Amino acid sequence: MPSPSNNFLGKTITHLRDIWRDATDFRARREQLELSAELSEKDEATLREWIDHCLEERGGEVAARVRAATLGRSYLDLSDEGQLRFLKILAAHYDTDNAAVEAGIATWQQASPAHRPQAAQQLRELLEPPRMRLLRLFNELPQGIKFLVDMRAQILALRNQHPELRPLEGDLKNLLRSWFDVGLLQLEQIRWQSSAEVLEKLIEYEAVHAIQSWDDLKNRLDSDRRCFAFFHPNMPSEPLIFVEVALVNGLADNVQALLDESAPVGNIEQADTAIFYSISNAQRGLAGISFGNFLIKRVVKELQHDFPQLRQFATLSPIPGLTRWLKRTAPEELAALPGGSIVAAQLTDGQLPESLENDELQAALLQLTAHYLAVAERKGGTAADPVTHFHLSNGAEIAQLNWMADGSANGLKQSAGMMVNYLYDLPKIEERSEAYSRDGTRTLSSGFKSLLSK
Amino acid sequence: MPSPSNNFLGKTITHLRDIWRDATDFRARREQLELSAELSEKDEATLREWIDHCLEERGGEVAARVRAATLGRSYLDLSDEGQLRFLKILAAHYDTDNAAVEAGIATWQQASPAHRPQAAQQLRELLEPPRMRLLRLFNELPQGIKFLVDMRAQILALRNQHPELRPLEGDLKNLLRSWFDVGLLQLEQIRWQSSAEVLEKLIEYEAVHAIQSWDDLKNRLDSDRRCFAFFHPNMPSEPLIFVEVALVNGLADNVQALLDESAPVGNIEQADTAIFYSISNAQRGLAGISFGNFLIKRVVKELQHDFPQLRQFATLSPIPGLTRWLKRTAPEELAALPGGSIVAAQLTDGQLPESLENDELQAALLQLTAHYLAVAERKGGTAADPVTHFHLSNGAEIAQLNWMADGSANGLKQSAGMMVNYLYDLPKIEERSEAYSRDGTRTLSSGFKSLLSK
Amino acid sequence: MPSPSNNFLGKTITHLRDIWRDATDFRARREQLELSAELSEKDEATLREWIDHCLEERGGEVAARVRAATLGRSYLDLSDEGQLRFLKILAAHYDTDNAAVEAGIATWQQASPAHRPQAAQQLRELLEPPRMRLLRLFNELPQGIKFLVDMRAQILALRNQHPELRPLEGDLKNLLRSWFDVGLLQLEQIRWQSSAEVLEKLIEYEAVHAIQSWDDLKNRLDSDRRCFAFFHPNMPSEPLIFVEVALVNGLADNVQALLDESAPVGNIEQADTAIFYSISNAQRGLAGISFGNFLIKRVVKELQHDFPQLRQFATLSPIPGLTRWLKRTAPEELAALPGGSIVAAQLTDGQLPESLENDELQAALLQLTAHYLAVAERKGGTAADPVTHFHLSNGAEIAQLNWMADGSANGLKQSAGMMVNYLYDLPKIEERSEAYSRDGTRTLSSGFKSLLSK
Amino acid sequence: MPSPSNNFLGKTITHLRDIWRDATDFRARREQLELSAELSEKDEATLREWIDHCLEERGGEVAARVRAATLGRSYLDLSDEGQLRFLKILAAHYDTDNAAVEAGIATWQQASPAHRPQAAQQLRELLEPPRMRLLRLFNELPQGIKFLVDMRAQILALRNQHPELRPLEGDLKNLLRSWFDVGLLQLEQIRWQSSAEVLEKLIEYEAVHAIQSWDDLKNRLDSDRRCFAFFHPNMPSEPLIFVEVALVNGLADNVQALLDESAPVGNIEQADTAIFYSISNAQRGLAGISFGNFLIKRVVKELQHDFPQLRQFATLSPIPGLTRWLKRTAPEELAALPGGSIVAAQLTDGQLPESLENDELQAALLQLTAHYLAVAERKGGTAADPVTHFHLSNGAEIAQLNWMADGSANGLKQSAGMMVNYLYDLPKIEERSEAYSRDGTRTLSSGFKSLLSK
Repeated sequence: MPSPSNNFLGKTITHLRDIWRDATDFRARREQLELSAELSEKDEATLREWIDHCLEERGGEVAARVRAATLGRSYLDLSDEGQLRFLKILAAHYDTDNAAVEAGIATWQQASPAHRPQAAQQLRELLEPPRMRLLRLFNELPQGIKFLVDMRAQILALRNQHPELRPLEGDLKNLLRSWFDVGLLQLEQIRWQSSAEVLEKLIEYEAVHAIQSWDDLKNRLDSDRRCFAFFHPNMPSEPLIFVEVALVNGLADNVQALLDESAPVGNIEQADTAIFYSISNAQRGLAGISFGNFLIKRVVKELQHDFPQLRQFATLSPIPGLTRWLKRTAPEELAALPGGSIVAAQLTDGQLPESLENDELQAALLQLTAHYLAVAERKGGTAADPVTHFHLSNGAEIAQLNWMADGSANGLKQSAGMMVNYLYDLPKIEERSEAYSRDGTRTLSSGFKSLLSK
Repeated sequence: MPSPSNNFLGKTITHLRDIWRDATDFRARREQLELSAELSEKDEATLREWIDHCLEERGGEVAARVRAATLGRSYLDLSDEGQLRFLKILAAHYDTDNAAVEAGIATWQQASPAHRPQAAQQLRELLEPPRMRLLRLFNELPQGIKFLVDMRAQILALRNQHPELRPLEGDLKNLLRSWFDVGLLQLEQIRWQSSAEVLEKLIEYEAVHAIQSWDDLKNRLDSDRRCFAFFHPNMPSEPLIFVEVALVNGLADNVQALLDESAPVGNIEQADTAIFYSISNAQRGLAGISFGNFLIKRVVKELQHDFPQLRQFATLSPIPGLTRWLKRTAPEELAALPGGSIVAAQLTDGQLPESLENDELQAALLQLTAHYLAVAERKGGTAADPVTHFHLSNGAEIAQLNWMADGSANGLKQSAGMMVNYLYDLPKIEERSEAYSRDGTRTLSSGFKSLLSK
Repeated sequence: MPSPSNNFLGKTITHLRDIWRDATDFRARREQLELSAELSEKDEATLREWIDHCLEERGGEVAARVRAATLGRSYLDLSDEGQLRFLKILAAHYDTDNAAVEAGIATWQQASPAHRPQAAQQLRELLEPPRMRLLRLFNELPQGIKFLVDMRAQILALRNQHPELRPLEGDLKNLLRSWFDVGLLQLEQIRWQSSAEVLEKLIEYEAVHAIQSWDDLKNRLDSDRRCFAFFHPNMPSEPLIFVEVALVNGLADNVQALLDESAPVGNIEQADTAIFYSISNAQRGLAGISFGNFLIKRVVKELQHDFPQLRQFATLSPIPGLTRWLKRTAPEELAALPGGSIVAAQLTDGQLPESLENDELQAALLQLTAHYLAVAERKGGTAADPVTHFHLSNGAEIAQLNWMADGSANGLKQSAGMMVNYLYDLPKIEERSEAYSRDGTRTLSSGFKSLLSK
Repeated sequence: MPSPSNNFLGKTITHLRDIWRDATDFRARREQLELSAELSEKDEATLREWIDHCLEERGGEVAARVRAATLGRSYLDLSDEGQLRFLKILAAHYDTDNAAVEAGIATWQQASPAHRPQAAQQLRELLEPPRMRLLRLFNELPQGIKFLVDMRAQILALRNQHPELRPLEGDLKNLLRSWFDVGLLQLEQIRWQSSAEVLEKLIEYEAVHAIQSWDDLKNRLDSDRRCFAFFHPNMPSEPLIFVEVALVNGLADNVQALLDESAPVGNIEQADTAIFYSISNAQRGLAGISFGNFLIKRVVKELQHDFPQLRQFATLSPIPGLTRWLKRTAPEELAALPGGSIVAAQLTDGQLPESLENDELQAALLQLTAHYLAVAERKGGTAADPVTHFHLSNGAEIAQLNWMADGSANGLKQSAGMMVNYLYDLPKIEERSEAYSRDGTRTLSSGFKSLLSK
């Protein structure tokens, strides 16, 4: 059986074990919580007793946190199977008490208007599963918040097979959403002078254009590049999300050119355009808690301050859903779209031919892709491509479609090598964001429009 | 009319106005929110429209935060009266939607067990007043969290006169309790080398033994003293709570001796006792969100690490409720207590005579005070004195009662000049904390017990 | 007898004793150097043996530094008399070996051209007194460099009475000049957020307009003010020299107005002029090693970068030599100068009357002072006033003379309340500096010239 | 022709060009110093005029530094040939003025005792070549000190071919020795959390056991390792010298085992020995200015403080001179030494056979190597091996000789795979250092002695 915990918690476990070695207290050390690695049935009782003791907080809140620390450390020592059992115990036994909620509902319903707010607050507390309190207790551990983030990552990987874990996953998400409020995050520039420990994480987490080596990374942090990340104060060596920016002249239309280590360093004093060519979320356990829009806008502000001569802020973005969409769309439906009949004729099992060196196909693909970006919809009317949806939600314009802009294996596979520039026209982004979210309006540059109407 | 906002928000307003000048965005600057200082009736409509716009998040979450920033700045420019109106609008118009809650209750009650968690979560969200979302939006502002802390301080001062603000105060407390989770706080040692901006706050906030001057402060940070504080990462120049410690030989029994600037600096290598002689909460807006117990235990750990030779951790604490208790207790009741008849005979209108230089009275007062600390109860069985209750809850022992330990005007007035040492015997604090919270058991040193039985 | 060491080394001694307590090594602790406080004759032999041992470096360079550390600590424990004896021993017994120099001269004179450089270097080393090596050894001690700075301050205070110390003072100056090369110094902005330990030094060292209190200091660090200092990396809490700047509109003509704590904070966005109103050297032991010119020019650059709207950089300077000059100049000589006869008529024993509220006298004084600044000379042709000389050497222009610009007791006494603005016109400062140093040319503004020709 | 400047200044040039772009001033920019890359004859005159202008300091010292900055930048733009010419001009034309020295000698010789010190100081100044002042002026440039360090490295590489540069090299050495006084250096621990820019330098500079990759480096910074370096405050990203330490049990006898990335991380709580397994000088331009002895002793202190349980401090050191010595020593001389006849019989052209798997040869080699370490001398009586000499000078004991301790190609070639542990027995190092420097006494462990006497 593949070990889900190793996928997500492996490194963290080693790391936290080191950090937590000294973090547990005099008291906890004395009455150590001893559990077998697989968490045998006998241990289950020990464990539940320990958790109950934590939740009762009989020895005071400080002691409860110490007990939780011991519990957290014990969790790290469990096998995958043992951790799964631990999670199932949390999910099954520390859920909301329905009878208490019914009583709270009655109180609320009978409360006078003046007492309603208090009754509402009490009902809210009754609706919260008791395990939430336990999860909160972990937070005082050094990097306990990272423990919770990774625990959620672990459950996200397990929840399809073990749907009974879903409510627990939801609890973690609620907790983390509050603690990762964007107002609590810190924007930091990442440089070659930054800690190797942090830089190593960029190499590990870069999701769009993989970082091949430390030299590749150094090149991305050169004087004509910028990299910014959000950090949480309690996870100072863990970027949450980061963006890579190139300072260039005009819209960049090829990502390999941007990443070429042998290319000369640009003169940033002459740069007029900032190209956001990669945004990566670094923490799977924060899935669904979004910072990307804030990051882009905070970085735009930083760049405006440092380089007043910049006149354009744009992305060079992949089209991750394109070939998947070609494959999923019925051939006859495809054939009805602009450029669609030529493309459809070239597909084998819904897949494009290996070589795209065919002028007619190229023109048709550009036209069809423009349609995909500008018109194709998901249910609910949002843009079919998730990246398109992200940038339109943020108020960007679809500015330019670039042929053979990403010649990497992945680029060819996902999007036939094409990439898009989304343009952030600052004075208009709020209005555009609003128009897109209100009625799905997508703003297109005049150049891009002409592609559509060919 | 006294200006409540000036009491609490005065300095903060000036400070935040400076900080926020550049924090508002291009967009916000364009469609500035203009309000009269007193928030006239006409402005009320403008304001509510603006708030509605924020809450709808039509232009995206980033834009909503920008709008909230503008709102926050406008608030700073309102008069006291205008601010009160603003708060009342928040309290009155952005409360929980009862009809929606009723619907949520129905959904929850009808949900299958598998859907219960989701329905519970939805119901929790419906129970939360919409203004909570608005308050959260302020957090992205630089030091927005300080804005919220001070807004709560302001409402706390207003709520007796304006009880309709209580639910809003409760919302703020909930929000702040989550963001000020002790796991998110940072313990820092404060030294003479620390920023003058932070040190100035100590002078301002010290609540137990007022700091008279910068020289007095410097003396409290000398090589035989330690000062520690909790900070929140988003309020880096604002201590939340701080404790002052003296490293001495044996239990210190006089606070003026400890604070004497002309006394020679102690040799910390020979110190065997750490005396916690002052703990002050620095933020009124965090009332009821407690860190004191964590602070003491974290500081004990720091000191144990730095000074392995320390053998005792104790406080030198005031008895703030003593003379009030003497006054409130019926004379005949008092007379029935140990030492009580002698004391009662000396009271005039419940007050002690100016001079306490009377051996009989002194002995009786010590006996009666020992009773007050060790036996006297509030409703619910907790210790009558709030400081006693705090330390017993944390697991301390009542160790020693000191005559004429605080000869300051305030010390004489509150507690006839007496002070107590509470002892933190580390291996026993959890057990004692549990015993006190379970059945009110107060641990007394044998020396202290002998006072009682005299 | 006044204790010269206490004047200069008093605080440093306490401070260094604390710091050095742990800095001495295992070895040194074993064979402690024990000296009586007055350094008796017997101890003199012990001391010289110890110094000889240091200089021989028999146990290696590291051991020699450890021995020097022990020596340094012993010095701190000597009485004033003992320290004076110690210094005299250094001066008398560790001087250049003349016979060795004669031999070195012979070698140099006989060396072939190819060997001259080496012979020259050897001769240079022979000319250096051996005590220089001992002084260098102190530098590895924590803040040993501060010890040397203060030792020089001490000798400067003693050298008139004890001229045999002068060569030792010269050695220290040579050593310090190399280690305090301006390229090794760090420019730092000082703010209210800076360490209280550093701010306390500003209060202590401000030499031009005394800082009255921490509130006065805070006012001088407000948002419309700037303060910069040079630091040496080995004395991080000791400013070497600092300058205070006000950002204002137009040339400031009154220093009390600048320092008024109750005045509103200026809007720096509208400031067009930076006024350098105080420059103070902080280390007496660095007398004659000059940083002021570098400081001014580095600060001008910083300000230009941060406030591009600034159009003028000028001082508001005292005229410290004026009344002294009036007193020293013969009445008949004075009477021959512009405005001089009127002024001379008012002098009593060379002193001005208490009240200067006399229009004729005021006009005459302005005219005579303008002459003092623009024409009066020392031997060698430099400006009579030391402050004038300093700014003219740096390339400034004498721009404006201000009546009643410093109404403080000291201002009235030194310069009849007048102050001058020296203007730093950036593109011209090099040329003006050169002209002044070449032929004594002083640049005057046209406004100032008109004063002269009245 | 190989480009000497590229070997040493290549990277620095690029780096400094970036840094210095903004460092030159308004004035310098106006009258730019324009030189052809090869420094044509015509340019030579321009250059000398510029240098003369700098040295005269007519526009003041600040202006002189600005001129020097311009000069420094121009130097960076010269070709190798041009730079060589520049250096030769400095060497030839800015040397000591012999006539002035003769006059200074006369003054000194005629001076009364009281005036001798002043005359000596004047003579010292006259003996200093004027170019020294120019070199000092470079120091105010950002990282100007690095420029000087690298200029010396460049001259060191050129001086054999161009002996006329030697005096200039000597001047630089004098200057750098003063500015790199060990008291001005900062000891810093280097960790995986350190800046990648600094870590990259370790990879580049490690001279003993090459760092193969970032993973190899990370392994050397793991929790059971320590790395410390000296830094100069003006070169904050350039280590000067660094040492790598392993915390282990007992004397480590194999360096590949220490560097094995797949080996488990040791438990430092149980470590009783600190093994210094690599010391590397990082700046060729600081050759002959020694910090290694200070570094070892400072690091020992740090480790003693952090790990009180450590009982041994030792090295695991190469024997870089061994096989060279075998080759150089006459066979008959070798044959007379212990083990020598067996070894000599195996040599071919003075070289050992490829395979050393021969028990007799191994025993003989160990015996002969022990002799090499413990007895073999250079002229002057110091140990034949430079590493042996270094550690004996510092007061170490030769503790243990390890067979096949470095199986790398280099280890086999240099020292037949053997390595030595030198032991630093703290209370004895000063005495041993003194004994070795006084009469060449080498301290040997009893185990090592037994090798000798076999």
